[in-house]
Amino acid sequence: MRPRPAALIARKRDGGALTDDELGLLVGGYLDGSVSEGQMAALLMAGVLNGFTRAEALALTRILTASGQVLDLSGLAGPTIDKHSTGGVGDGTTLLVAPLLAACGAQVVKLSGRGLGHSGGTLDKLEAIPGLRVGLAEEEILDIAADVGCVVAAQTDRLVPADRALYALRDVTATVESVALIASSVMSKKLAAGASTIVLDVKAGDGAFMPDDAAATELAELCVAIGEGAGRRTSALVTGMDEPLGRGIGNALEVVEAVELLSAPPRGRLAEVALALAAEGLAGARGLAPAEVEAELREAWGRGAALERLAAMIAAQGGDPAVCDDPRGVLPAAPVRATVPAAEGGVVRRVPARAVGELTVALGAGRARKDDAVDPAVGVWLGVEVGDEIAAGDPLGEVLARTGAQAEEAAARLAALVEVGGPVSPAPTLRARLGGA
Amino acid sequence: MRPRPAALIARKRDGGALTDDELGLLVGGYLDGSVSEGQMAALLMAGVLNGFTRAEALALTRILTASGQVLDLSGLAGPTIDKHSTGGVGDGTTLLVAPLLAACGAQVVKLSGRGLGHSGGTLDKLEAIPGLRVGLAEEEILDIAADVGCVVAAQTDRLVPADRALYALRDVTATVESVALIASSVMSKKLAAGASTIVLDVKAGDGAFMPDDAAATELAELCVAIGEGAGRRTSALVTGMDEPLGRGIGNALEVVEAVELLSAPPRGRLAEVALALAAEGLAGARGLAPAEVEAELREAWGRGAALERLAAMIAAQGGDPAVCDDPRGVLPAAPVRATVPAAEGGVVRRVPARAVGELTVALGAGRARKDDAVDPAVGVWLGVEVGDEIAAGDPLGEVLARTGAQAEEAAARLAALVEVGGPVSPAPTLRARLGGA
Repeated sequence: MRPRPAALIARKRDGGALTDDELGLLVGGYLDGSVSEGQMAALLMAGVLNGFTRAEALALTRILTASGQVLDLSGLAGPTIDKHSTGGVGDGTTLLVAPLLAACGAQVVKLSGRGLGHSGGTLDKLEAIPGLRVGLAEEEILDIAADVGCVVAAQTDRLVPADRALYALRDVTATVESVALIASSVMSKKLAAGASTIVLDVKAGDGAFMPDDAAATELAELCVAIGEGAGRRTSALVTGMDEPLGRGIGNALEVVEAVELLSAPPRGRLAEVALALAAEGLAGARGLAPAEVEAELREAWGRGAALERLAAMIAAQGGDPAVCDDPRGVLPAAPVRATVPAAEGGVVRRVPARAVGELTVALGAGRARKDDAVDPAVGVWLGVEVGDEIAAGDPLGEVLARTGAQAEEAAARLAALVEVGGPVSPAPTLRARLGGA
Repeated sequence: MRPRPAALIARKRDGGALTDDELGLLVGGYLDGSVSEGQMAALLMAGVLNGFTRAEALALTRILTASGQVLDLSGLAGPTIDKHSTGGVGDGTTLLVAPLLAACGAQVVKLSGRGLGHSGGTLDKLEAIPGLRVGLAEEEILDIAADVGCVVAAQTDRLVPADRALYALRDVTATVESVALIASSVMSKKLAAGASTIVLDVKAGDGAFMPDDAAATELAELCVAIGEGAGRRTSALVTGMDEPLGRGIGNALEVVEAVELLSAPPRGRLAEVALALAAEGLAGARGLAPAEVEAELREAWGRGAALERLAAMIAAQGGDPAVCDDPRGVLPAAPVRATVPAAEGGVVRRVPARAVGELTVALGAGRARKDDAVDPAVGVWLGVEVGDEIAAGDPLGEVLARTGAQAEEAAARLAALVEVGGPVSPAPTLRARLGGA
């Protein structure tokens, strides 16, 4: 006899666990309408409060993955490597990691999302490039991956429909906050995207979904277990997101920063994280330790091979590859610029990632709501990071805005957000590593 | 700004409390469609797991009550007294309490429900009487209350629509089990029914919704607080429901038992509970202690005044009042009778209420699902109760069934259910009293 949904919800409510088949019935029933929205929401809330077991997280991931198409990357030469970040501020790592891995012979098929709230999205950044398309058909995606080695496109509707349905419900029912639900959602998308090696960047801190290293490590650990359980080489880095990772926050500005970084040998925190993620991926694919592939990656970066792959990818996706020669000339920039001088000298103690991200959303760079349009040309270029010694009057950053009033308001907010004071020991950006060799 | 439902749900999820206005927005929004079924279900599950505060229970009751019509009993001479049982097996107290209070000058307007699962419903019992109608218009209800002193009718759709909507959702989302939600549901119906004095019979035990005295007492205490907070004189008894309260279990059989009990001075556990509930109500209405009205109630019962009021009520509701002279002659009885003899002698140690109730549901006396039809003519008449000394071959009870096979199966089940063994000290039926003078 098919079990009654209410009886299964009651078991979860009372602290019990559900089997693979039972979870499959509930999720499948939610999609076909035999399990109501209320029943699914009650189950999700019971799971958020009582927790899901590791076995339930694995089962949920399988169910979500199997709800739609799974990309077949077997026609690519390989290794196929995917990379995912849980989202942060000034986090343009995909724009660095994908072409860098392509430059080392891998194929990166990256299906990305859009930004929401203070956290940016790779698709929005790429769409700042004139002409570039992210809505690609499957065949086109595979062709570009084969030709260029990397492609970044929007997830198609045929992948993980159950994940989209569940996420839409979680979003309005305050049931997002569950490590198991987050991990199964992230990993179902990665499994459906088909790569053999998966690298995760789980952000921890004020500007991240996970507030601290412990929570981020828990999520990373579960994601790695799910990936390994599904037969994919999976590793994860936990990286700090208390301050923005890059200097540019805003869609065009983040492309500018990526191009400028790839035009010279790697330097700074954003490059450090990108290099570490690429090393995880390449090492994982080759069965090596990350240290064993680092020199190859640095060499490819240093000689401009990654930048060349980025330009090829942009061209293949219809964008203007001249962006890689003259990013500030090609990319749109808002008309009003305001430099923000430091009111006092000292050491930069804090550049709060979330608040800086929200500031750029207020300028138009991001979305408060899912259907908002984004303005590629606005944002903030930070002049400082935590630990910098500065003098009064030094630029804390520059604001790009549509109007003088917006620029003025953003500049005042930024001035108030950057904390300057006595000495500080900045925390390392790389916090932990899970999985891998 | 109107708060986002998800933010309110998140607060409940995180252990916080909601204000009256916030609960009003959520419940009102659920009724008008601006709060989705999923959001309401998530809120309910968060409340079931984290608990609702007393203030939230009071607010919810007010919101549910105010969602529909409130009966105006001010045209009745008074005192107006209502009585509610949380439901059990062989619990025909309403058929005794309502006419008994009417015989003592009160008006009882009782809006009842139907049985579900092992637990019987007063409307089903009354409908066993040929011709009797429970679907009465408001004017008719008030007229019968004024003329007869008591009336038992189905709750109209105009009362507590929000309670019906929430209950339907709770039923399928495993969110029934919350003392605050149960209390606010029960009390909203009582407040909407308009009586000045409310008496509650909260059942505890195997055959009750509340499994033990502690849980039943918690529910009773909260219901009394809600009633008193709404300005009604409210008291509650916690009574045992480990074994059926009466001898008859089945719709016609319970009417038979009520008539036979009212035809003689009160005796036995069912009469004891009915008398105690009537005393609570009458004493509450007069500002006295129950002991001060007990003699009057016993006298009215003993001289047949309560039976006479029951006959008048049955006649006023279109039923055949001859049922009060010859219940076994007038009421339907299923064609097959099977007596169940005791296999061994000893002391009756256990007559499990829930299992006996389920046995009669299997015969057709109750509903497994809400839309099932009930058969008034089937059931069980118990020959023993806990503590009785019996000899092998003594009748444990009699089964009334539609077919020989059904009778045989029910008889075998009953024989297996009644435990006979060494001496036992039966627990008292009256367990606790809350509220009142």
